[in-house]
Amino acid sequence: MGDLEKILIVICDGLGDRPVDEFKGKTPLQMAKKPTLNRIAREGICGMMYPIDVGIRAGSDTSHLAILGYDPYKLYTGRGPFEAAGVGLEVKGGDVAFRCNFSTVDENFVVVDRRAGRIKDGTAALAKALDGMEIEGIKVLFKESIEHRAVLVLRGNGLSPYITDADPHAENQKVHEVKPLKAEAELTARVVNQFVKESYRILSEHPVNRERESKGLPPANIVLPRGAGIVPHIPKVGELHRIKGAAITGIALVKGVCRVAGLDIIEVKGATGGLDTDMMAKAEAVVKALETYDLVFVNIKAPDICGHDGNAGEKVKVIARIDKAMEYVLKNANQNFVLALTADHTTPVSVKDHTGDAVPLAIHGRGVRKDSVRTFDEIACAKGGMGHILGKNLLPFLLQLTARSEKFGS
Amino acid sequence: MGDLEKILIVICDGLGDRPVDEFKGKTPLQMAKKPTLNRIAREGICGMMYPIDVGIRAGSDTSHLAILGYDPYKLYTGRGPFEAAGVGLEVKGGDVAFRCNFSTVDENFVVVDRRAGRIKDGTAALAKALDGMEIEGIKVLFKESIEHRAVLVLRGNGLSPYITDADPHAENQKVHEVKPLKAEAELTARVVNQFVKESYRILSEHPVNRERESKGLPPANIVLPRGAGIVPHIPKVGELHRIKGAAITGIALVKGVCRVAGLDIIEVKGATGGLDTDMMAKAEAVVKALETYDLVFVNIKAPDICGHDGNAGEKVKVIARIDKAMEYVLKNANQNFVLALTADHTTPVSVKDHTGDAVPLAIHGRGVRKDSVRTFDEIACAKGGMGHILGKNLLPFLLQLTARSEKFGS
Repeated sequence: MGDLEKILIVICDGLGDRPVDEFKGKTPLQMAKKPTLNRIAREGICGMMYPIDVGIRAGSDTSHLAILGYDPYKLYTGRGPFEAAGVGLEVKGGDVAFRCNFSTVDENFVVVDRRAGRIKDGTAALAKALDGMEIEGIKVLFKESIEHRAVLVLRGNGLSPYITDADPHAENQKVHEVKPLKAEAELTARVVNQFVKESYRILSEHPVNRERESKGLPPANIVLPRGAGIVPHIPKVGELHRIKGAAITGIALVKGVCRVAGLDIIEVKGATGGLDTDMMAKAEAVVKALETYDLVFVNIKAPDICGHDGNAGEKVKVIARIDKAMEYVLKNANQNFVLALTADHTTPVSVKDHTGDAVPLAIHGRGVRKDSVRTFDEIACAKGGMGHILGKNLLPFLLQLTARSEKFGS
Repeated sequence: MGDLEKILIVICDGLGDRPVDEFKGKTPLQMAKKPTLNRIAREGICGMMYPIDVGIRAGSDTSHLAILGYDPYKLYTGRGPFEAAGVGLEVKGGDVAFRCNFSTVDENFVVVDRRAGRIKDGTAALAKALDGMEIEGIKVLFKESIEHRAVLVLRGNGLSPYITDADPHAENQKVHEVKPLKAEAELTARVVNQFVKESYRILSEHPVNRERESKGLPPANIVLPRGAGIVPHIPKVGELHRIKGAAITGIALVKGVCRVAGLDIIEVKGATGGLDTDMMAKAEAVVKALETYDLVFVNIKAPDICGHDGNAGEKVKVIARIDKAMEYVLKNANQNFVLALTADHTTPVSVKDHTGDAVPLAIHGRGVRKDSVRTFDEIACAKGGMGHILGKNLLPFLLQLTARSEKFGS
């Protein structure tokens, strides 16, 4: 399939918005200087997309799953598996995974600091001390993430994600005993309780914590798991559609979704997933990735951060930066490709969280029916030729546009 | 229901297209002279239709099933049943049916000519010699189709379509032994293998072949089945909706779908399903059929042929001919009717095969909400009042428009 067009999907995380008072009812997208995004809309076919379904408030994980062609209602049980895969643990179908905090407890297991003083250094050594143990025949994989965060993966027969959290989600409370929510989860609950106890036993004696205590810092003397989820047994995107795919994203959660979906993760120096992310470095990575991959999947987190912060002015600036990055990609890519420019959900600055509104969509490249949409925003795209689609519709549409689909029937 | 409006569904096969370079980015529909089609759009309500789902590349068979209200994912296992029904075999739910070639093999069962010299004459006599035999309690129905083509139907208990093809799909290869793909298909595989052997035994001695050989022509001395499919047990359209329906089409495959759906097939002299089809004869047949039927279903194959041929200029001409035929229908029909004008899939001349794009749709007749669409094409209809619908949505919409639906709830 060497000379088929490539597929580039650019997800501007949380890009969609609602009317903003300080913009006299316009959205950040309508306010932003974005000649390239407008060009993409003008030369392409536009529409609106409900990432999961009409009015459903999608998370970034569930939305990315849907956009990659999976049914999140069937395979999403929690964030754990995707966080774990995102920090680089090789998860397998059937594993049960957790997000964790390194925390500080007193001798009665009362939580003194849920984030262990937002510990930055030494967590790799702490994690290593916990990784690899076995409890009741269940293998324990453990790895540090950013700051006080970590991930736990349990591997073995008879695991279930239907358990309560050990993390009390508040300070001055005792560590919760994990309880099974279904009978099938009794083993898992026992293993997690045992792991939490072991983590206290091992970490409270660890040299990293001895040193912290000598400096007056709260020791990271326990691990508190939460958000159990089971890793789904799913076919990889590449196998399903016979394509070689890669993802570029600074966010562990999105990396995890893409890794579980079988995409290669391309690490980009300076792509932090924060407002300080180096968008041009990402754009360069996209241009390079298009040389070797059939599908390049990019997540740009910055608009979502502005949404959560309620910062409309910053969101406008971020959109202008995305525009520059897209200009670079269109100018410098040597391959023919079909581009889908959209978002994983709407994060309006007025709400500071994800909403169930549709997100704008523009598809650009050979073969698309150009419609009369002139600008890329939430109002103009609603009049586009694609109409309103769901997230799960996007990949099938792009696959047939690049001649990669089988015909159903004859 | 004597004074209810009739329903006329006109499927212009493969009508939808993509921007064409030689038309400076316009589609054949946008280029064609089509005052009547535009009038239908202008006076009606327009939209776009994904025959099966967004981005799914529909076949004509699966698409027609969907438009007639069935779920092709549930009942479509292969083309065989619809081809068999299309050439006039009375198929029944549970029958397993095949497309076949009359082929030429040598004495070692190596295929010398998959089409037996594209045999034209004598296949009816050859077919008759095979029709009606019984193998392991399974009844064999066999009928010739056009040229070297034929259809095979197996009837009896315990049949399954999950078998491999006898046809090696290439010359200089041995006839394949049919193998079951599931355990339940062992009987069917044995019966087909036996039928293939019997066909050789009977046909190689047949006078038609003796004569061919005397003329130096390759004998049609074997039958090679392929594309097994099970005939679905489905309620007829007429029973489901208490309507009397008829289909007008020159294509065996579409005839077959319509026959399985319980529509009467109206044969029209000169309606060939080719570019040479007599569209005015079809139009006259439509006018006549509207007198006696509640639902008239028409397929016009010609645009699809132009799409597969990559012939944009011819597609434009074909559209103008369809326009004339529709002008005749609108002028001469004495009955009130609601018209749905659409396609079963997009066959862009740039792709030469079916794609997963939406097709244009216009619904014309009493009760429809006129929108602002002025022309019938892929771009204009996307702004229409119907929005984007799926193929399965069309018949329910038309049934309620003509007051034929039950209310769901109160």
